[in-house]
Amino acid sequence: MEIIKKQSGAAFTIKKGQLLKVIDPQGEQVSDMVLFNAGDKREKISSGKTLDFEENILITKGDFLWSNRSNKMMEILEDTNGRNDFLLAPCSPETFKIMYKNDKYHPSCFENLYTNLAKFDIEPDDIPTAFNIFMNVQFDLNGKISVDPPLSKAGDYVLMEAKMDLIVGLTACSAEDSNGGSFKPIHYEILN
Amino acid sequence: MEIIKKQSGAAFTIKKGQLLKVIDPQGEQVSDMVLFNAGDKREKISSGKTLDFEENILITKGDFLWSNRSNKMMEILEDTNGRNDFLLAPCSPETFKIMYKNDKYHPSCFENLYTNLAKFDIEPDDIPTAFNIFMNVQFDLNGKISVDPPLSKAGDYVLMEAKMDLIVGLTACSAEDSNGGSFKPIHYEILN
Repeated sequence: MEIIKKQSGAAFTIKKGQLLKVIDPQGEQVSDMVLFNAGDKREKISSGKTLDFEENILITKGDFLWSNRSNKMMEILEDTNGRNDFLLAPCSPETFKIMYKNDKYHPSCFENLYTNLAKFDIEPDDIPTAFNIFMNVQFDLNGKISVDPPLSKAGDYVLMEAKMDLIVGLTACSAEDSNGGSFKPIHYEILN
Repeated sequence: MEIIKKQSGAAFTIKKGQLLKVIDPQGEQVSDMVLFNAGDKREKISSGKTLDFEENILITKGDFLWSNRSNKMMEILEDTNGRNDFLLAPCSPETFKIMYKNDKYHPSCFENLYTNLAKFDIEPDDIPTAFNIFMNVQFDLNGKISVDPPLSKAGDYVLMEAKMDLIVGLTACSAEDSNGGSFKPIHYEILN
């Protein structure tokens, strides 16, 4: 079991066929995940392709996470909470400036992704819209979005199977609104 | 007035402050649009940043199109139809293989974008999720997506102001389901 401390991130590789389990150990904590083909980093997770092929905004058990080249990257085998977001980009320094009116330094998923992914020669501009595990983005039929506290309880998890060799970036999200106002760790396990 | 013939595309530059008018001359025709910072092509239009900052899935008059670096690329000044999509990636050869069960060659927005953008040294892997003008993607509160015929009538248009110098890729969409089963041209004008 690996621990991502609050408001931080991790990056690692997993092989095709291995399982990744992402756990919310305390409840109400989001984890942003990005994926890259380990053999060619220009292939990466795509919100636009995933929502199109799965014909749903809400991605959960039974769905695949697809790449910009229309290949399957992950299959979601289990999802004990069942609410994730794939609409919104990772929180970044500008998120806090523009949406929180906070000009001071603030940790962000964007920084935690690119600093951890730098060891794989992945740069900030390479970071796509993340699959935001446990994130509770509600929307109405007029399209209005609200970022609500996660519905996840302590111990909820998402279990995924890699469909290709992958570089994974994963965070314990740093944004107040996304996490019910407090910051908690995320746990993950790689299973064979 | 420039004409994009049915199932084709175009790419061009516009300067900060210029206006781009995208017109559906016959009605029920989608136009996929991608944007790149003309001074640094690694900055590009971002669905995830736009939906986040505008707090809405449905982007229309009064909204901005934002980049992956959290800068404003376009402001939507007018939108006579009012329904556009920013969820789904451009149709690609794989769209027709996977969703239409069609293994033969089929024109696609993805091909029409990257072939036209090649003169700016933009490669297929650089193409992001497009802002799909006039595209009528309906969704319910369970997230279920359906691609319905456009609501646009002959002469409907979207007028946008460039907030930076831009490279623009624009199509007359090639997918049957997105265009009510037939393919029509798209017109555009650059206004000073």
